[in-house]
Amino acid sequence: MSLTPPDAPTPREACVHRLANGLTLIGEPADGFQSAAFSLMIPAGCRYDAADQLGLANLTCEMALRGAGDRDSRALVSDLDALGVERGESVGLSHTSLGASTLAENLPAALAIYADIVRRPHLPEDQLEAGRQVCLQELRGVEDEPSQKLMEELRRRHYGDPYGRASSGNIAAVESLQIRDVRQFQHKRYAPDSAILAVAGAFDWDAMVEDVERLFGDWVNNEAPSKTVETPGAGDGHVTYDSSQAHIGIAFPSVPYSHADYFQAWGANGVLSSGMSSRLFTEVREKRGLCYTVYASLQTQKDRAAVFCYAGTTAERAQETLDVTHSELVRLADGVTAEELGRLKARMKSGLILQQESTHARAGVLARDWRHLGHIRSLAEVNKLVDAVTADTINDYLQRNPPSDFTIVTLGPQPLTRPN
Amino acid sequence: MSLTPPDAPTPREACVHRLANGLTLIGEPADGFQSAAFSLMIPAGCRYDAADQLGLANLTCEMALRGAGDRDSRALVSDLDALGVERGESVGLSHTSLGASTLAENLPAALAIYADIVRRPHLPEDQLEAGRQVCLQELRGVEDEPSQKLMEELRRRHYGDPYGRASSGNIAAVESLQIRDVRQFQHKRYAPDSAILAVAGAFDWDAMVEDVERLFGDWVNNEAPSKTVETPGAGDGHVTYDSSQAHIGIAFPSVPYSHADYFQAWGANGVLSSGMSSRLFTEVREKRGLCYTVYASLQTQKDRAAVFCYAGTTAERAQETLDVTHSELVRLADGVTAEELGRLKARMKSGLILQQESTHARAGVLARDWRHLGHIRSLAEVNKLVDAVTADTINDYLQRNPPSDFTIVTLGPQPLTRPN
Repeated sequence: MSLTPPDAPTPREACVHRLANGLTLIGEPADGFQSAAFSLMIPAGCRYDAADQLGLANLTCEMALRGAGDRDSRALVSDLDALGVERGESVGLSHTSLGASTLAENLPAALAIYADIVRRPHLPEDQLEAGRQVCLQELRGVEDEPSQKLMEELRRRHYGDPYGRASSGNIAAVESLQIRDVRQFQHKRYAPDSAILAVAGAFDWDAMVEDVERLFGDWVNNEAPSKTVETPGAGDGHVTYDSSQAHIGIAFPSVPYSHADYFQAWGANGVLSSGMSSRLFTEVREKRGLCYTVYASLQTQKDRAAVFCYAGTTAERAQETLDVTHSELVRLADGVTAEELGRLKARMKSGLILQQESTHARAGVLARDWRHLGHIRSLAEVNKLVDAVTADTINDYLQRNPPSDFTIVTLGPQPLTRPN
Repeated sequence: MSLTPPDAPTPREACVHRLANGLTLIGEPADGFQSAAFSLMIPAGCRYDAADQLGLANLTCEMALRGAGDRDSRALVSDLDALGVERGESVGLSHTSLGASTLAENLPAALAIYADIVRRPHLPEDQLEAGRQVCLQELRGVEDEPSQKLMEELRRRHYGDPYGRASSGNIAAVESLQIRDVRQFQHKRYAPDSAILAVAGAFDWDAMVEDVERLFGDWVNNEAPSKTVETPGAGDGHVTYDSSQAHIGIAFPSVPYSHADYFQAWGANGVLSSGMSSRLFTEVREKRGLCYTVYASLQTQKDRAAVFCYAGTTAERAQETLDVTHSELVRLADGVTAEELGRLKARMKSGLILQQESTHARAGVLARDWRHLGHIRSLAEVNKLVDAVTADTINDYLQRNPPSDFTIVTLGPQPLTRPN
């Protein structure tokens, strides 16, 4: 089965321009759009937070938008709104990502403001308390969101530190942070080396290169990141939570995006969890009505990956839900069928086209490809890789890598018994 | 300021075809897409649930996907997945909506399956318990999501019944439902009269009309909906919830989408809550750090509308958050500025273009326009309506309709004092 639709337009080519300071610009200009989107990833992830400053990367990101360059806090957000920018920031393990979508004609002006945000933020001391409170509200809000609380605990217990960190940090650390900590973090870690700017949609590549050289060309690296000290995860655990509901999380190791086996692991996980006919949906939700929500998500870091599986249910049915979910994970090792894989490939084909039709989604994919692979996979290349996946190749992978070494974390009124 | 971008392609025209049985097909074929999406709205909303059967429309929707036409439950979901369909269902007050996005070439086959789902569902008795359990899990899950729990309570207390209903119903009713109730509801309410099928993206209009006549032309109406008996909302309230967090909801009346003043109300609400420079974001989040999340959302029914406002905070700062949020709502009556409106229009301009670039979003808008207006607003018409909004026209509206008659509902460890 070929995944290239018969009437596909000429494949778009991603262009790459590396600045001398280490920032890489990736662009994929495309016809048929009036919008453009970018994703700017800077190497300021929460892995660089010191152990007693967890949450610093997150607070720094919150503060960076409170005035930059010639604009005070008020002018900055007003001007972004006046450019019609739909924005979003997230602080990950390795990078802080700033994304924006807007009309093509407003992209250069928006990008100039983002150059100020990452290079010349004011980090005003008189707004530190407000920024801190926003970060604390985010942290405390998780207390009222047990499914998120559980999945954060699962990551910590599976990966250990720093890979299992939640970027929001902890309350004691965030309460202790000073403006000098924020300024130091920004000075060191908001840097061009290994930063990525990915742009998709309606724009002119040559003009973009010129803009980016002007806006980011003289950005300098102030300090190389310190080596990360790793500690292992604590493994299985239970969080007592007074509720009639129970939340179940299971993690197991997988292979990262850059790994030769990645598409095999992706296929196995898709059979498990992608679509209404997937195994978890069918066995846990449809047949037994154990859950409203159940999923398994293959999440990849640069050098490691894991599948994180979630099921939420009532306390009475929690043990049954854990047992059934766990047995589906174990049963994967027996292999997948050609029918299951056929459906998955059809979903993938649709998904790739829908992704190409969104400048926002496409900018994110370009940045991810560059970060993980050091090159951009065209749609044709992805199709070829997916075409090469068969039930046999997946089953060979699963024989070599049966789901195992599970980390199981539960949150609810009482602990459950670990399945064998 | 004109909102029509200089390089806009020829405006697309929506086509309308009314079937003799009352179903309306709306189509907006568009160049530049390889995907297509539809939204099928059938008049089977939760307003038709009897008082002792709340949750019946929701359970019927859950059951409708468990086999239909020639396909049993398993074959139905497998075939939808094999067509690469991204699907989603929602049960609203008046309609049950079924939506799907996929590759253009798979659209006719997907639509044929949906004709089976709404016209010839098996509603198998041996799957009733599993379907019921999924609906109960959804209901019970809300107990662990206090922000959602609060907003459901706010709707109930503001609108009364049936306008304030949550489609999930209540546990006692869902536990009592029998398969004959589900089959009766489907027989009566899954009907073509006032149903809408909206299609956007890459497809041929004439072929679509032919398909739809063949698939839905002989669908008959079995029974006119019964008249709804309305009861008023209970007004202010507090839900005691053991947490360190507090959740605050405020509602006040507004005007529906079809109202001559709608774009004035929309503009006022945008100044309040759209974008980082909006008043709520600035006053509640940025300046005081009271919340991580705060918003006001103008939600429109066919004949009425309300603004629903949410703020989540810590218990200690709950009174301050309520006071500040409430005072921003009251302050709206003093008017908005031309600068605020200018930013809002720029955001709207961007948003309209991004919406046009998503076949899924566009299908939803087509269905909404038809339902509320009985015709489709082109992008040019929307631009004209938005262009006609000025600070003066909004302020005139706000003088006539100052935010008032607030319903305030809180959820947290203790009640708060109602602001004056």
